[in-house]
Amino acid sequence: MSKSLPISPLAPTQPQTLPPIRGVRLAVGQAGIKHQNRNDVLLIELAPGTAAAGVFTRSLTRAAPVDWCEEALLHSRGQARAIIVNSGNANAFTGQAGIQTVRDTVVGAAKVMGVHTREVLMASTGVIGQPLDANKITTQLPNIIQNLDENSWAEAARAIMTTDTFAKLSTRQAMIADETVTINGIAKGSGMIAPDMATMLGFICTDAAVPPTILKKLLNEINEISFNAITVDGDTSTNDCIILAATGAAQNRVPKNANDPLLRDFQRALTEIMLDLAHQVVRDGEGAQKFIAIRVTGARNQAEAKKIAMAIGNSPLIKTAIAGGDANWGRIVMAIGKSGAYAERDRLKISIGGTLIAANGMAVMGYDEAPVTQHINGREIDIAVDLSLGRGAFTAWTCDLTHGYIAINADYRS
Amino acid sequence: MSKSLPISPLAPTQPQTLPPIRGVRLAVGQAGIKHQNRNDVLLIELAPGTAAAGVFTRSLTRAAPVDWCEEALLHSRGQARAIIVNSGNANAFTGQAGIQTVRDTVVGAAKVMGVHTREVLMASTGVIGQPLDANKITTQLPNIIQNLDENSWAEAARAIMTTDTFAKLSTRQAMIADETVTINGIAKGSGMIAPDMATMLGFICTDAAVPPTILKKLLNEINEISFNAITVDGDTSTNDCIILAATGAAQNRVPKNANDPLLRDFQRALTEIMLDLAHQVVRDGEGAQKFIAIRVTGARNQAEAKKIAMAIGNSPLIKTAIAGGDANWGRIVMAIGKSGAYAERDRLKISIGGTLIAANGMAVMGYDEAPVTQHINGREIDIAVDLSLGRGAFTAWTCDLTHGYIAINADYRS
Repeated sequence: MSKSLPISPLAPTQPQTLPPIRGVRLAVGQAGIKHQNRNDVLLIELAPGTAAAGVFTRSLTRAAPVDWCEEALLHSRGQARAIIVNSGNANAFTGQAGIQTVRDTVVGAAKVMGVHTREVLMASTGVIGQPLDANKITTQLPNIIQNLDENSWAEAARAIMTTDTFAKLSTRQAMIADETVTINGIAKGSGMIAPDMATMLGFICTDAAVPPTILKKLLNEINEISFNAITVDGDTSTNDCIILAATGAAQNRVPKNANDPLLRDFQRALTEIMLDLAHQVVRDGEGAQKFIAIRVTGARNQAEAKKIAMAIGNSPLIKTAIAGGDANWGRIVMAIGKSGAYAERDRLKISIGGTLIAANGMAVMGYDEAPVTQHINGREIDIAVDLSLGRGAFTAWTCDLTHGYIAINADYRS
Repeated sequence: MSKSLPISPLAPTQPQTLPPIRGVRLAVGQAGIKHQNRNDVLLIELAPGTAAAGVFTRSLTRAAPVDWCEEALLHSRGQARAIIVNSGNANAFTGQAGIQTVRDTVVGAAKVMGVHTREVLMASTGVIGQPLDANKITTQLPNIIQNLDENSWAEAARAIMTTDTFAKLSTRQAMIADETVTINGIAKGSGMIAPDMATMLGFICTDAAVPPTILKKLLNEINEISFNAITVDGDTSTNDCIILAATGAAQNRVPKNANDPLLRDFQRALTEIMLDLAHQVVRDGEGAQKFIAIRVTGARNQAEAKKIAMAIGNSPLIKTAIAGGDANWGRIVMAIGKSGAYAERDRLKISIGGTLIAANGMAVMGYDEAPVTQHINGREIDIAVDLSLGRGAFTAWTCDLTHGYIAINADYRS
């Protein structure tokens, strides 16, 4: 099915290539999990001494591989030597058999690679509720391992796609003291995207030397304003997971804590990558024709700003209006009202594309409709809401809701 | 636009007519608020001594007429002599001018009818953020009042429609002691339907003698399991409002409190009417092709059961799957996991159309797919979730999410 979907009109126009990361090699393979003749397994090899951290879905019905990753990172104290990922089957709601599948796959990978089981992380994405046969993957591992290569980032990003219409990659460089480090990230995600944890799969690797506790803290913080700030359909996956791994090959001066000034530029670069990947997920939202940024300011605090931004980003009435090129700001008023966050009707200011269109509890008299109409008919939509109450601010991103979403989810059986 | 929409395939097949209610007369008229040559004003006249209660949207950006109703009922101590309703303009987010419009309309109606201003309730539905000219309505009132009639219930239900494709009416009889009383209800609602208050307009009248404090209590209680248990798109209106008026013309024995056994049959009838109207709103959900009942049992408490039922009912992935005739229960697992209510993955039981398809954390081995497929391709869909934790239960109702919803909200400008 993914092959028959047209590429999103919001896809990056330049094909992206990532540089190597010292200490990281990748390989892909065909296990025939859902489709034949397409790569559906990714193996990431991490050099000895690699620190790792993860953020995981908050779903209470989460999948076996997610449970495994959290446990493994705990037992290994944030050390990882391999990440194995499959697409085509989420191994979610598969009971005891699903737990055994993870165990068998991880044991198989550890054996072939000569590492400890707890140093192998696993992630799965695809259909929920169907048994996943570990043999399909483990029998391929000896072949896959032959192909480990430091330049296979693009193949890796493609192997983890499901309903994605384009591969999602991002890279940045940063300075830690006088050492240049590189960060690469890949991600997948298109539907079942909602703001309650990673909301997708993402794998980010760097050659920087950063201890696991600091990695974890940075990952959590940046996750809040990137992957947790996007929504396609308000639905939260059972399998969301983002892993950040640092091989230490750059041999930079090691930071003392997450607030160490040494890390300032690294944090900037990591934030850019995580935002870039998160935005790519939205740009590949099922049926997306428009990319929508929702900037809320003036809330009593950040949590309330986020509630309002997400109420707007999850409103089907707003997302369909934007799809139709209708600057229907009355529906934005509605979403603010229902958000559960505090707002005062008569202090709200609403702008679309930089034009103030509502304030003082009513429409702005005689505002110029032409630029608003032009803006709402473009591909990049900007909605700004100022609550005029305090300093709480949050920006969320979403896409429009179109016939394409219905077609992908209703017209074809998954 | 509403004229060009085809009637929902889920509409009642029998045209409904309502009997008169002693003490209630109705009239409709044309104020040309949005469209010419269609009835867009409804006046309900209530006999002296009529008790009234209301439930209103919890939106923080609610409309001026909603504020007015709550205030008026407070000042009149639950007495009402008239309800004036317009369609075509919600008078929401219209600032000081919108408040003045309500005042002018209510004052105009009170004068023409010879009643006190605080005894006139007002409700509006239609587009948000456009000024509503009170003159359009008040100049028509002398004509409208000439047509007051106890048999105009069907015309009344049609006059308050916006994107509705059929008029929503319901009637029941009940015994209070040895007196037969009648209850009639009309409602409108199709989009912007979500469970956070009345979520639509509804007007229910009875000839029973029931004091306003008891009316209010019954209305609140039944509202929780009827209008607050439906969702079309998770969006909460700025104008939701349900009014219950009791003329007392039946001269039944007056109940002492809401739990008075005298009221048992009345409560049964009122519950049936409110459920009937709520279901009709879902059946007329924008683009609806299927009516979906979601029965959650075994939760730790009712609030958590409701959270789960609503997470399922608001999930676009589930609603599109059902539209496509796909019994994709994995998405139900996903919705339970994200609901925020407590659940244990391995104790869940999920049934569709009475067939148990998932239990013990996995699919039920060898369940018969044929009846499930037949059921999911029908018009009336039944989803049952048993959490196996406690005695909390809640049933919610929704419709599927189809191309029709996108067409109504994106392809046409509102």
